[in-house]
Amino acid sequence: MKWAIIGTWKMSYQGILKASQQLEQNLSASDAVLTAIHDVEENPNFHSVGYSGLPNKEGIITCDAGYMDGTTLQVGAVGALEHVIHAIDVAKKCSETRFNNVLVGQGANIFAQKNGFANENLMSEETYQYYLKQLQNPKPLAAYNGHDTVGVLACDQKKHLIAATSTSGLFMKEPGRIGDSPLVGCGFYADDTIGCACATGVGEEIMRGCLSYDVIIRMKQGQDPQTAASQCVAEFSKRMIKQKGYVDAISLICMNQEGEIGVGTNVKFAFTYANDQHMPTIYIAEPKENGTSVRAITDSDIDID
Amino acid sequence: MKWAIIGTWKMSYQGILKASQQLEQNLSASDAVLTAIHDVEENPNFHSVGYSGLPNKEGIITCDAGYMDGTTLQVGAVGALEHVIHAIDVAKKCSETRFNNVLVGQGANIFAQKNGFANENLMSEETYQYYLKQLQNPKPLAAYNGHDTVGVLACDQKKHLIAATSTSGLFMKEPGRIGDSPLVGCGFYADDTIGCACATGVGEEIMRGCLSYDVIIRMKQGQDPQTAASQCVAEFSKRMIKQKGYVDAISLICMNQEGEIGVGTNVKFAFTYANDQHMPTIYIAEPKENGTSVRAITDSDIDID
Repeated sequence: MKWAIIGTWKMSYQGILKASQQLEQNLSASDAVLTAIHDVEENPNFHSVGYSGLPNKEGIITCDAGYMDGTTLQVGAVGALEHVIHAIDVAKKCSETRFNNVLVGQGANIFAQKNGFANENLMSEETYQYYLKQLQNPKPLAAYNGHDTVGVLACDQKKHLIAATSTSGLFMKEPGRIGDSPLVGCGFYADDTIGCACATGVGEEIMRGCLSYDVIIRMKQGQDPQTAASQCVAEFSKRMIKQKGYVDAISLICMNQEGEIGVGTNVKFAFTYANDQHMPTIYIAEPKENGTSVRAITDSDIDID
Repeated sequence: MKWAIIGTWKMSYQGILKASQQLEQNLSASDAVLTAIHDVEENPNFHSVGYSGLPNKEGIITCDAGYMDGTTLQVGAVGALEHVIHAIDVAKKCSETRFNNVLVGQGANIFAQKNGFANENLMSEETYQYYLKQLQNPKPLAAYNGHDTVGVLACDQKKHLIAATSTSGLFMKEPGRIGDSPLVGCGFYADDTIGCACATGVGEEIMRGCLSYDVIIRMKQGQDPQTAASQCVAEFSKRMIKQKGYVDAISLICMNQEGEIGVGTNVKFAFTYANDQHMPTIYIAEPKENGTSVRAITDSDIDID
């Protein structure tokens, strides 16, 4: 195949559609990934990424994003960034220097400001009302049925790989809380000589297993992407259940240098995949006894985002 | 052996001495690691950790710390924390919940305040003058001969492993810049079933290779700690030199479940090691053609910290 791209959740569909056209026109994996993520970041209907994301417990929306170039291994990330809808652009900008590649909090805000990223409002009326409702009638965080990080992996016609993530994080999180999405090796990783990977779910759980890098190493050692992703998540989930009696939601996607993909998950999960031979298509991944199974989406899959 | 502990750089010696006594008395790896790191954090002579650490380019001292419990895989970390000398204590506190384990910036400051960590001054007269001098006569960051993160690994008499790091980060860093030290898998990792590891050096370089987790996987797959650490750093350094023409400073220490250690480095590096059969001793590690060699420190090693 000439190129390939995959994004987490149904919400990535429209962005993947646009990005696929770019990859077909021989634009870079970087351009494609940014296009795909921008679409989710600006969409007011998605409440876990960028504009109209859900806020922390103080009612402030802060975003995390990560970006890795598989050719150079340059990493860029921002954590707890405010007032910028396209956190992924700031993360990419951070990746372009020798030092200061990961910026958090007020330092990230200042950097964004100095680099021309507009001082934007991320709160929509909808998310504001949702927040007020939570204050009045608190539900435990564990029950939050979050839609999560948008993670995108792409392989362009030059066989360059990019991995990137963007999220507004856990609803009602503590101020300053960052999840796995801006943590290289946990939320994302890319290496042209092996493959790329990214994660979505409960960040605190994902980071305990350093899961994006774990799946990269599996592929390096010869596991095909599907086996790698499936076993990575199944084994780690089993470990957590043995340790704590439960495991929080984890979904992982990966891609090798040939654009072949893998998906591992411990909850029902949806993703969008496209390559030069297949139109963007939404698939469903579900945890089974010893791994993950993947099938096409059907009309009865209304319970998934 | 009954217990073992290792710390980065000569500066860890006194703390390792105190922590060794605790391990001998059957205190936990957690207590020992905190003791060892506290000593470095409060020592005014060390300018890369805690009190008297060097500031960012705005003249503000911000600290990063990471903590991981090898038994539970619980992670705690703080990034760009201000006004707390013992950042490691805040990181450990963060590790104790299900969510919100990694806090950065103002959120980290608020958490520290709410949890009784005093609002402390970290700037000494010495570091203030050093900062003013840099402002008047700017030297490039790459030339900064930093002393770095204090990283400590311990295995107690119950065979529990802890990995922890603490640093004031790169001198003259951008506000909000965090390095590898608070990034699980990059700056630190611990898993009782395999071993533990931590890194010191230029954080941006270390994170590109997710090096702490990389060395853990090597040990999981049967490499002894010394081979794992040595090859991990040598291979990654070679990759970076091939990619960019140079590699920034990286030093890595690791320990398996038996308390046996490994050291990999691409610059001259010192560390302190002790176990129940050997008094705390400072060693020198140096990069050789295909790996790292280790020897006892001598009187002529005055160029190392």
